[in-house]
Amino acid sequence: MYIKNYRELPVESTGVEGLTARWAINASQGATNFSMRLLELEPLKATPFHQHNSEHEIFVLVGKGEVEAGDKVYPIREGSVIYIAPNEAHKFNNTGASILRMVDAVMFPAKVAK
Amino acid sequence: MYIKNYRELPVESTGVEGLTARWAINASQGATNFSMRLLELEPLKATPFHQHNSEHEIFVLVGKGEVEAGDKVYPIREGSVIYIAPNEAHKFNNTGASILRMVDAVMFPAKVAK
Repeated sequence: MYIKNYRELPVESTGVEGLTARWAINASQGATNFSMRLLELEPLKATPFHQHNSEHEIFVLVGKGEVEAGDKVYPIREGSVIYIAPNEAHKFNNTGASILRMVDAVMFPAKVAK
Repeated sequence: MYIKNYRELPVESTGVEGLTARWAINASQGATNFSMRLLELEPLKATPFHQHNSEHEIFVLVGKGEVEAGDKVYPIREGSVIYIAPNEAHKFNNTGASILRMVDAVMFPAKVAK
């Protein structure tokens, strides 16, 4: 058992300008299959298009934005649940005036079938 | 890519009085490793002590309550992240006057080592 308020977790750089992560549950907390982290994207910032082997399972806590995949754009806001399949190219845009905060669950890299 | 607001998802019985689930991401949405669901526990309701092979990775969206594990009781509230290890006996209590709503990510049963 491990319990923490996400506000107590350190804010870490992700290498993408305007996007930070707070790792909530990871191997350090005993997890063996997948992680849970908070992603925070600053107002009017966007990630580049990217892809990875692990699927995303995301819940939007606060903010307004979009997810782009292929040539489609999907609006997201508080309460949106988002599934992004393994190796599906995607990007996140914060289109609002406040932070876009999301809970993101991702498989450990070693558990993802290549 | 699959996007939905959780409010659009059907509320399903879990077999525990006062506890319902909205399945947000599951095999039906293309997921192959783990699920994401919303758990909603009514005011002053509690789950029984129980355990299962899959770990829980939980984010508390709203409400006030407790998680019990062994002889320990941990308070939870909006913003709490909770990791419950595989086969760790636990129960949830809603100690507040409003709904306790949580995002819960769990491995598919077939993926859990027995």
